[in-house]
Amino acid sequence: MAAMSKIATGNGHGENSPYFDGWKAYETDPFHPIDRPEGVIQMGLAENQLCFDVIKKWLVKHPEASLCSAQGVTKFKEAALFQDYHGMPEFRRAVAKFMGKVRGDRVKFDPERIVMSGGATGAHEMVAFCLADPGEAFLVPTPYYPGFDRDLKWRTGVELVPINCESSNSFKITREAMEAAYVKAQEANLRVKGLLLTNPSNPLGTILDRDTLKNIVSFVNEKNIHLIGDEIYAATVFMEPEFVSISEIIEADDVECNRDLIHIVYSLSKDMGFPGFRVGIVYSYNDAVVSCARKMSSFGLVSSQTQHLIASMLSDDDFVDNFIVESRELLFKRHNYFTWSLSQVGIGCLKSNAGLFIWMDLRKLLKDKTFEAEMELWRVIINDVKLNVSPGSSFHCDEPGWFRVCFANMDDNTMEVALLRIRTFVLKNNKAMVPPIKLCRRSSLKLSLSRSLSRRMDDLMSPGIMSPHSPLPQSPLVRART
Amino acid sequence: MAAMSKIATGNGHGENSPYFDGWKAYETDPFHPIDRPEGVIQMGLAENQLCFDVIKKWLVKHPEASLCSAQGVTKFKEAALFQDYHGMPEFRRAVAKFMGKVRGDRVKFDPERIVMSGGATGAHEMVAFCLADPGEAFLVPTPYYPGFDRDLKWRTGVELVPINCESSNSFKITREAMEAAYVKAQEANLRVKGLLLTNPSNPLGTILDRDTLKNIVSFVNEKNIHLIGDEIYAATVFMEPEFVSISEIIEADDVECNRDLIHIVYSLSKDMGFPGFRVGIVYSYNDAVVSCARKMSSFGLVSSQTQHLIASMLSDDDFVDNFIVESRELLFKRHNYFTWSLSQVGIGCLKSNAGLFIWMDLRKLLKDKTFEAEMELWRVIINDVKLNVSPGSSFHCDEPGWFRVCFANMDDNTMEVALLRIRTFVLKNNKAMVPPIKLCRRSSLKLSLSRSLSRRMDDLMSPGIMSPHSPLPQSPLVRART
Repeated sequence: MAAMSKIATGNGHGENSPYFDGWKAYETDPFHPIDRPEGVIQMGLAENQLCFDVIKKWLVKHPEASLCSAQGVTKFKEAALFQDYHGMPEFRRAVAKFMGKVRGDRVKFDPERIVMSGGATGAHEMVAFCLADPGEAFLVPTPYYPGFDRDLKWRTGVELVPINCESSNSFKITREAMEAAYVKAQEANLRVKGLLLTNPSNPLGTILDRDTLKNIVSFVNEKNIHLIGDEIYAATVFMEPEFVSISEIIEADDVECNRDLIHIVYSLSKDMGFPGFRVGIVYSYNDAVVSCARKMSSFGLVSSQTQHLIASMLSDDDFVDNFIVESRELLFKRHNYFTWSLSQVGIGCLKSNAGLFIWMDLRKLLKDKTFEAEMELWRVIINDVKLNVSPGSSFHCDEPGWFRVCFANMDDNTMEVALLRIRTFVLKNNKAMVPPIKLCRRSSLKLSLSRSLSRRMDDLMSPGIMSPHSPLPQSPLVRART
Repeated sequence: MAAMSKIATGNGHGENSPYFDGWKAYETDPFHPIDRPEGVIQMGLAENQLCFDVIKKWLVKHPEASLCSAQGVTKFKEAALFQDYHGMPEFRRAVAKFMGKVRGDRVKFDPERIVMSGGATGAHEMVAFCLADPGEAFLVPTPYYPGFDRDLKWRTGVELVPINCESSNSFKITREAMEAAYVKAQEANLRVKGLLLTNPSNPLGTILDRDTLKNIVSFVNEKNIHLIGDEIYAATVFMEPEFVSISEIIEADDVECNRDLIHIVYSLSKDMGFPGFRVGIVYSYNDAVVSCARKMSSFGLVSSQTQHLIASMLSDDDFVDNFIVESRELLFKRHNYFTWSLSQVGIGCLKSNAGLFIWMDLRKLLKDKTFEAEMELWRVIINDVKLNVSPGSSFHCDEPGWFRVCFANMDDNTMEVALLRIRTFVLKNNKAMVPPIKLCRRSSLKLSLSRSLSRRMDDLMSPGIMSPHSPLPQSPLVRART
């Protein structure tokens, strides 16, 4: 056979990871309430399905946003032909405005700096191509999204060097950890070209505080390296403290920053639940990167049909304002209910206020403190409990026993089945962990907490890790429901 | 400023080409019949706008193909979430069927081999990434599409080596020319990994005959190199002889072929006029390439909204059958009228039967036979005549004096303005070229030839190049109209 490329014959895609293996396990035996009640439940996919009713309502009211309707077809020619690298002006304006609104309108985004890409996947690759040559490196705090190994490294030849963060201080990104990673890269003869930050964090579901962000900005300024801020979960912050974007930090008076170093990756795949639409954005404060990325966007332009729809939808201020509030409320309720239910069976998780997942702490269920034991436990969960959750090792976590579990990609009933399976499993394997509380009747399980109530509930938990031994079961709220 | 990558700071994008300069000239002063009647007319963009009425009729009849309608919104969730690398099964089925129909149903395409990419642009880059390492080469017959230098080379580091084809034999791709290019690459220490063929040719507007295709297949088999067949203009063949796809050649009994070497790039940007929708396809007979390309498609997946629309539209057999016939008829009429009108002012072009452009022969207008003279003439055409046409040098043509002129991206009235400008220019600059024929009144200019009549007209022309001194002005057809 004629030779293919090293990229094609190598394994840089990183598909041989438990993260993707879990997806495959789901695909071969997907759960269905009637057809496959024993199938695998997909909890490895960070999808936001909760906000779809809000979006569908808007869609049916706006046939003009479609090209297949008497109202919309007049725009067909313009849309079908449109292939400008820049993107439709109304699309860029609407996305820039949405990015601002998501950040509480505390910062403005310039439509001229909006560059399209094929989802966040394409955006990350594009930025890597713009900033680094093969063999050069980006620092990335751990744990981090497994797809980065594909997106940033595979076709670009760029390397990722972990900044090791630890559970002992809630995976905080410290100056020491950044310096250590920088030195390690230099020792490996890798020129460091940047730091990749995900905020809110995937998989942690946490956001970075202002001081940490300032430290990171100082660090990249001192080293004269780029900062890529992945903020694709910005609108999923469902609870205080509020989200702080890197763009707010660099615009603050008290921060010295060379803006040419700052680049944001954005997307509508998570915040709006549109992964299929492939709306990825590179927003750079660096003119040269905007110019180069715009040329590269020819490899991943957003379909003009989708630009047209997004421009129409996101130009509707009332819709957007309502969407942001409603989507957060839905995530808030689901997150609280899910973590509360886990706590009832003795499972804790990292305290979080964002994202479509939790960082579940199963350290106590490990036979020993090794990644082999983590994989063993993961195989039981996927093969016997039939839940596709992702082991921390696939997120480059430094410590075994953590698992990312997605909670927004399923309906209430599927969530109940998943919780029931978890409870059964824990009861069977580690009775000591579970406080003797009877599970609520299914019909009464739907928690609908007000914001203030939930904050109270949250306050009851420990500041760092939500402990399975938190006083929650004794709270008036829980007593009222059991 | 912190360093960017060599890709970003180099000029591998190839934007500093008269091909793109022409686009920029158009963008700064675009023609509009009322607002900018003196503006530049865009004849550098191979867009198919002629078929839009046919498509719009279908669209308004099918609101269920939209996601923003009461009929279509039930599919919203599935579509918005859909991000599978494979693409929606109904999308792949519909595209495979369409590819077959476009090729007269003489060959079948397997939906399992359909891989999505972000337009043909993304498809070409994807194939290059799959097949070759940086510094390895593909052979490409000249003249060829300027975008290949960006698509295949820019981010991949792959090289293109021209196979020099000449006007003396109508730019035929000969075995000798292929061998010469192969040797030249070897002499430059470039390992040849494949041959890239565009059929129908852009910019020539011609198709390859069966013998030439067989020769090329033999060549790649002997050398054990890959063959990438770019067939994105397959449905634009508007006149006999009929199109022969590389897939028909490899399935023929009399051809020995290792199918692992054969890959087709397809798109709906030209055949259906949907460049904005970014529907690119890699169709490979090589399982390993299908597998690798599918993984790479995460960087350029087709928007699921667009997959949904295309699946609905192309599953409608009646629509597709009618579309293929109507679109060809419209291109046929426009092409014949345009080339006939040029011949009236003494301008010839390469005889062609496909594509959205002609290969115009202005060799007689050059001051001398150099590329400097070609650029000088091109600057006059773009700055004074105000037509964005593309000089042959930007297509790597070996001989100065050829220009690609697109004819399907404008309405009839704009076409008339363009023709009037050309006539005025030629009259002023080279009166000897123009036969003394009075230009028809505008209202009577719309030519509507039947197929058989036009073929007769075509037969009157010389077999290779349509000569400005062809007997056409004396034909009964022309006399009847003047």
